[in-house]
Amino acid sequence: MCRQQSILQEGFLLYQNDKHHFTRNHNGIINMGTSENKLCYDLLSKRLMQADMLHMDPALLEYPDWKGHSFLREEVASFLTEYCKAPSPLEAENVVVMNGCSSLFSSIAAVTCDPGDAILVPTPFYGAIREDVALYSGVRLVHTHLDCQPGGGDDRPFLLTVEKLEKSMEQAKAEGVRVRAVIFVNPHNPLGEIYSAEEMTAFLEFAKRNELHAIVDEVYMLSVFDESASFQSVLSFDRLPDVQRTHVMWGMSKDFAAAGLRMGVVYSQNQDFVLALAQLAFCHGIPGPSQHQVAQLLRDRDWVSREFLPQNRARMEAAHRYVSGALRGLGIPYLHRSSGFYIWADFRKALSEQSFLAERKLWQCFIRHKVLVSPGEAFSCATPGWFRIIFTDQEERLQLGMQRLRKALEELGRVSGQGAENGDEKAGLQSTADEAEPKRDGHGPLRPPPPSPPALPPHWLMRISSHWTSRPLSPPLAPPWTL
Amino acid sequence: MCRQQSILQEGFLLYQNDKHHFTRNHNGIINMGTSENKLCYDLLSKRLMQADMLHMDPALLEYPDWKGHSFLREEVASFLTEYCKAPSPLEAENVVVMNGCSSLFSSIAAVTCDPGDAILVPTPFYGAIREDVALYSGVRLVHTHLDCQPGGGDDRPFLLTVEKLEKSMEQAKAEGVRVRAVIFVNPHNPLGEIYSAEEMTAFLEFAKRNELHAIVDEVYMLSVFDESASFQSVLSFDRLPDVQRTHVMWGMSKDFAAAGLRMGVVYSQNQDFVLALAQLAFCHGIPGPSQHQVAQLLRDRDWVSREFLPQNRARMEAAHRYVSGALRGLGIPYLHRSSGFYIWADFRKALSEQSFLAERKLWQCFIRHKVLVSPGEAFSCATPGWFRIIFTDQEERLQLGMQRLRKALEELGRVSGQGAENGDEKAGLQSTADEAEPKRDGHGPLRPPPPSPPALPPHWLMRISSHWTSRPLSPPLAPPWTL
Repeated sequence: MCRQQSILQEGFLLYQNDKHHFTRNHNGIINMGTSENKLCYDLLSKRLMQADMLHMDPALLEYPDWKGHSFLREEVASFLTEYCKAPSPLEAENVVVMNGCSSLFSSIAAVTCDPGDAILVPTPFYGAIREDVALYSGVRLVHTHLDCQPGGGDDRPFLLTVEKLEKSMEQAKAEGVRVRAVIFVNPHNPLGEIYSAEEMTAFLEFAKRNELHAIVDEVYMLSVFDESASFQSVLSFDRLPDVQRTHVMWGMSKDFAAAGLRMGVVYSQNQDFVLALAQLAFCHGIPGPSQHQVAQLLRDRDWVSREFLPQNRARMEAAHRYVSGALRGLGIPYLHRSSGFYIWADFRKALSEQSFLAERKLWQCFIRHKVLVSPGEAFSCATPGWFRIIFTDQEERLQLGMQRLRKALEELGRVSGQGAENGDEKAGLQSTADEAEPKRDGHGPLRPPPPSPPALPPHWLMRISSHWTSRPLSPPLAPPWTL
Repeated sequence: MCRQQSILQEGFLLYQNDKHHFTRNHNGIINMGTSENKLCYDLLSKRLMQADMLHMDPALLEYPDWKGHSFLREEVASFLTEYCKAPSPLEAENVVVMNGCSSLFSSIAAVTCDPGDAILVPTPFYGAIREDVALYSGVRLVHTHLDCQPGGGDDRPFLLTVEKLEKSMEQAKAEGVRVRAVIFVNPHNPLGEIYSAEEMTAFLEFAKRNELHAIVDEVYMLSVFDESASFQSVLSFDRLPDVQRTHVMWGMSKDFAAAGLRMGVVYSQNQDFVLALAQLAFCHGIPGPSQHQVAQLLRDRDWVSREFLPQNRARMEAAHRYVSGALRGLGIPYLHRSSGFYIWADFRKALSEQSFLAERKLWQCFIRHKVLVSPGEAFSCATPGWFRIIFTDQEERLQLGMQRLRKALEELGRVSGQGAENGDEKAGLQSTADEAEPKRDGHGPLRPPPPSPPALPPHWLMRISSHWTSRPLSPPLAPPWTL
């Protein structure tokens, strides 16, 4: 079997072999490419070190129910009932737990499709899904490409509409491709878009009309860091258009900032689907003691609701404020959203030409400057030049990462003194422009992140536009919808 | 994708839905079908509840090196160096860790074969491998069938020889099947056979001659319960015939009696192989905290060598003595071996006819009597009537399981008062023939197993034959090599 390495994998491996560390490897790669939240180690470590985490029971050492121990599935059902605001209690028998959402995507593709079938996905999309769905049975993706230019009555760039979905379905049919499912990621990765209940209902109606399984990926549902933004899980809906074909994914990697715990779940009322997944789950099991730990985390609502979630949101908002401000300082336009760990940013002005080859070269240039971000090609974005920047990291690393991005752009002559018109913003970056180690002690990863949001100029809180912010200055590639 | 449920899976699911419990579900299924060691919960629980198991580090909560954290791979290399008696230190870079050996078999098949290729396996073999290797790329198995009748100079039933391997290779070639690898399980499952260093060297030479990857599964290497038996890991060899094509598997499920910890490893000096596996490992990752726990277990040599291994062996030997004695009491011949969790037993005399349909019916009859064992068909045994009986369980459950087997056979008229000639053995079974709850309190699974081997009549220690034991009495289907 030959398996091609994706750009995301390539970047992750480069980082793995040369991780930045403030004392041990200061010239290592700063990872602003992998979607992880590194803001809450202190909270998680403290909770995971409590005595209730150490528990043993013979069942934890035996071969488990492959779809997850019943105690964990019950806890997941109860947790989702509360945090998704389900109209009636969700049930453990509808829950399947696997070691991460990649395993779930692989298995869901295998049980909903035959080899050669396809799954529809609005694009740009989280690119790792391509390898996931291909893994077991060669399922491929069909794209609904979203345009970065708003137009035709759209007021949002990359707007997803039912019309666009229908059009790509028609095209797939015309090409003889059998589409069996559609993936909706909400909040969206990499766009950060939150689809409203009305939008999601319309998308699910589309799926029903076309007899598609709707795979609704809500792994960022609790990672909405702006209180004015509103997210509604489809599990909160009183009625789902096609309940037997709607399968909702969630996990610990994003909303609990714990990718290392390796736990993804899917909720589906379709028992055939659940049983089919259970048959593939023997290769995706989670150790019993870890299942206990995750159940304990989910059970501790007091800690989740009063400590972890509010602090996580505050830290995310501060970090987002910092990186978005730094991007404005660089004159890089970006999509201003309130969820996820990332900012979808428009580096088109930094390309030598408008091609994916040039995008790849820019990505390599960033890596030479020891900062990893993810190029739009990895998300199958139709337009070259977009990058996903992860902002959920400690202040010092974000500073260093943004300095390195600036240096790379300066080397290319794509940013200059006039790179930001706002004097304060420029000053904000200038204050950290020296790549020397920030004057703090104990920068190792074991050190908890700063307890309060980093002090940033208050005007960075300001929304410049509901969708876009920053004024790209030179070269004159500013899209018309920026300021 | 359509995936057929195997007999082993079917049995396991039946058990999962109706588990025996002494107080909560006394009429539930006794599982003597799934290869687990339930003799050491007390030792493991005590060790896994020690404070060093509770540890946190940011890296444990991040996306890991998919082939395992380096601290764990280093510990595995060091452990295998010592317990396999490697002539020089094994290296962490040659180790890949995944969530269990099924994941490893799936991934190894995918990286050594193209779709449609085949892997050779001496048969009977651990049947789950069939589904494992088919999972990713439709790899199938080619069998070297071993005959239950010794003959042609053989003195061991089911004897594996190079001649038989060569013959099946020739046959595969003649049929246009491309064989890319061969699996050697040592100690063998389900036979319990231990292949000597000379035999293994000859098998590896065969693999080299035929340019086959040799997948050497040594997951039972520390589960040899008779001190007079000698096992040698191929990792102890001064020279391997084809070092780049030899890959050794091991894990925690069997030798650490901890299938629930979900950890399998493969050791290979072929770096292309290691890198290829690493690319598939994103779907088979283990939670960081579990990796820490396993590393702590492996690191604690004092506990492993002075406490766990000797006690485990003593308990295994006692349990083996009990079940083999009970089989003798039933007049069921079996292969007398000194490793593994199972006894490979010959129930041919209990079949209504010599067919796999009759074998399946007997299996179903056992299940109706609420005892799960594994029929030979699940291991692709060429001759119907053989069953694998797991003996590594607590005394009370073994007693109940053997009573239920006896009742099933009695119902079929395949065992009677004259079922055992040895009065003491018969008395031994008679003493537990009443299926009422044994007169002990606290039979729940949380209760630790008895601290010392169960008191069994001393003559049960006796080896009746080096290969076979028991005298099958009636009906007269006794194979000629029994007593």
